[in-house]
Amino acid sequence: MTSELIRSTIEQIMPLDQGSMEEARHLHGRLTKPAGSLGELEELSIRLAGLAGECPPPLLRKASLAIFAGDHGVHAQGVTPWPQEVTAQMVANFLHGGAAVNAFAHEVRVGVTVVDVGVNGDLPQDLGLVHAKVRRGTHDMTETAAMTRGEAEAAIEAGIKVAQDLIEDGADVLLTGDMGITNTTASAALISAFCGREPGMVTGYGTGIDNATHARKIEVIKAALARHKPSKEDPIGVLSSVGGFEHAALAGFILGGAAHRVPVILDGVIAVSSALAAYALAPECRHAMIAGHRSVEPGATIALGKLDLAPLLELGMRLGEGTGAVLAYPIVAASVRVLHEMATFDDAGVSEK
Amino acid sequence: MTSELIRSTIEQIMPLDQGSMEEARHLHGRLTKPAGSLGELEELSIRLAGLAGECPPPLLRKASLAIFAGDHGVHAQGVTPWPQEVTAQMVANFLHGGAAVNAFAHEVRVGVTVVDVGVNGDLPQDLGLVHAKVRRGTHDMTETAAMTRGEAEAAIEAGIKVAQDLIEDGADVLLTGDMGITNTTASAALISAFCGREPGMVTGYGTGIDNATHARKIEVIKAALARHKPSKEDPIGVLSSVGGFEHAALAGFILGGAAHRVPVILDGVIAVSSALAAYALAPECRHAMIAGHRSVEPGATIALGKLDLAPLLELGMRLGEGTGAVLAYPIVAASVRVLHEMATFDDAGVSEK
Repeated sequence: MTSELIRSTIEQIMPLDQGSMEEARHLHGRLTKPAGSLGELEELSIRLAGLAGECPPPLLRKASLAIFAGDHGVHAQGVTPWPQEVTAQMVANFLHGGAAVNAFAHEVRVGVTVVDVGVNGDLPQDLGLVHAKVRRGTHDMTETAAMTRGEAEAAIEAGIKVAQDLIEDGADVLLTGDMGITNTTASAALISAFCGREPGMVTGYGTGIDNATHARKIEVIKAALARHKPSKEDPIGVLSSVGGFEHAALAGFILGGAAHRVPVILDGVIAVSSALAAYALAPECRHAMIAGHRSVEPGATIALGKLDLAPLLELGMRLGEGTGAVLAYPIVAASVRVLHEMATFDDAGVSEK
Repeated sequence: MTSELIRSTIEQIMPLDQGSMEEARHLHGRLTKPAGSLGELEELSIRLAGLAGECPPPLLRKASLAIFAGDHGVHAQGVTPWPQEVTAQMVANFLHGGAAVNAFAHEVRVGVTVVDVGVNGDLPQDLGLVHAKVRRGTHDMTETAAMTRGEAEAAIEAGIKVAQDLIEDGADVLLTGDMGITNTTASAALISAFCGREPGMVTGYGTGIDNATHARKIEVIKAALARHKPSKEDPIGVLSSVGGFEHAALAGFILGGAAHRVPVILDGVIAVSSALAAYALAPECRHAMIAGHRSVEPGATIALGKLDLAPLLELGMRLGEGTGAVLAYPIVAASVRVLHEMATFDDAGVSEK
C-alpha cells in the first residue's frame, strides 16, 4: 500500500560495503598514530567507508541541515506552557538567522534549509522557506489519529524529496533539524510504541515543564497509545496515529540520505524517534545514521539503544532545531579527513613500536 | 626565586569579572530558546564573558594550537615499546602536515605551531619550527631530577613566550598540543604528586602497552616519587623532579593565555597534568582552562576532577598531539557566537511561555 516513492527509496538502500570497510580498517593501521588511538572516530570513518562503498570515503565538503516544522493537535491537552504560535514564529526566526541553530551553523559552515510540513499558521512566502505543508497541524492524538495514513506518507515523501534536492545541490552529509511546539510529546509516544517501553520511562521535561505538566503529559501519551494500540510492525501506522508531520518527514529524510549512501547526522529526541520509524521501514538505513548528541530527554537514550548508536556529544542540551547535529558535524568531517590526509608510517619515515 | 617573566605573568592573572558573567547570564535568559536548553555551552559562554571581562566575549576567529615536543630520560627504563627517535620523526610529520592533528586542524581551521622544547635529536631548521630547546631530553627521573630548577623555569618561560607570540599574532583562543615518547609516564608522576594519588591509580596504557610494561611503568613512577618526594607546595620543584620539558612549557603556555584573558583549550592527559602545575602556581588561571576532551588515561579524569573541569568531548581518544583540543574548538566558538548572533524574544517577536 506504500507509495511508489517510499518503496523505491527503500529498495535503493544497500548494506555496508565490507570490502571498503576492510580497506579503511587496514589503512587506519598504517597511519602515523598508535592503532585505535582515535577511538570512536576510527569506527565512524570505517563505517562511512562502508556506506560510501569506497575508501577513503568522500571528504565532507557541503553539510546541509533541514529543519522540518510542524504543529501538533495534542497541544490542546495542555502538555506545554508554550503557545502553539511559537512554531511559526520560530520558523521566521530561523529564516532571519536569529536562532541558536543559525549561530551554530554559521560557526561550522552548515547550510540551513527550513521546511514547512505542517505548521498551523501562515508563513513567509520568501526567504527560502520550502513549502511542503501537508496540513495545518496534526489532529489531537488522544481523540483521533494524528494523521491519516495518506498524510503520513505525504510527509515521508516530502522528507525524501528534501534529501534528494539537497544531495542534488551538492550536499555530501545531511543533518536533521526540527521545530514544533509539543513535539517531544509525539516523540515520547513514538519511542514508547517502537521500543515497547512505558510512557513514564521515555517522557521527559521537554523545553522545561513543571512536575504537574509532566505527569499530565505521561497520561496523555498513555491515553493516545491505549486508543490507537499502534503496532510497530506497521511503522507508517505508528507515525500516523501518534507522530507528527515533522517526524514523518524526518523518517523520509533519513531514508533519502541512506538511499543515496549519504550520512545523516541525527539531532536529539525528535530525530531519534523519527529514526526508529525509518529503521522499522528499512533496517539497513541505520548504517547511514550518526547520532550527533545525547539529548537529556530520557526517550533519546532508549531510542539510541534500540538503534545501537553511540552519540558523539553529550553536552546536556535539550533545544532541538538541529543544534546537536550541527555541533557534531566537524567531528564527523574530521574523522573522514584523517583517511585522506594523514601520512603512513612508511611515507613519513616514522619508526614503529 | 622564580624568574621575573614567570612572576610578572602570574601577577597579571585576574579573577573572573562577575559583572560580565551576570550580563551574559541575563542575556541567555532573553535569547530565543528555553532557559538552560544549551546545557554546558551556556555555562561555558558565561565563563568566557567573565574571562574576557566583557559581554558578549569576543568572537573566536583565530585559534592557534601549539605542539610542545620533548624527550624523556626515563625512556631508558623500558616503559614504552616506541623508540625515542619517534618524537623527532613526529615533529617532522607535524611540520609536513601528515599527522592526525594536522588533518583535524585543517578541518576546523586551527593554526598549528610546533615548538621544540627538549627533543633529543636534530630537527628541521626551516618549515616554521619554533626552536626553544632547553636540553636534548630530560634526565631519567629514577636516577636524578628530570630537569634542574633553572631548566624547568626556562621551559615554563618558553611556553609563556609562545602564548604571547601567538596572541600578538592575533590568536583569540589557544589550544594545547604535545609530543614526546614516554610523556604519559611523566604525566602520571605529576598527577600522582599534585593529586596525592597512588601511581597505580593514575597510570594508564598510554599509546598502547602490554600488561607487563604497564606494571613496570607503575614501579618506575613509584621509584621516582620515592626518590624525589616532590611537594605540591613547590610546583616548579615537582615539574623539575618528575616532569618533562613539554609539561613545563605547557604550564607556561596556560599561564600566558590566562594572563592575557585568552581561553586555553586543554587536550588530554599531558595537558591536564601540566595544568595542575599551572593551577598550583596561580589558581586563578583555572578560569582560562577549557577541558577539550576526556582522555582514556585514568590520570586525566583524576586531574580534571582536581581542576573541577568537565570535558566537552569523550570519544575514547588517547593520541595527544592536541587532537582532543582541536575537535573541541568549534563547540567553544559556537558557544560564544550564540551571544553575538541570536535574537531575543522581543527582537524576534517570539512569544514566551
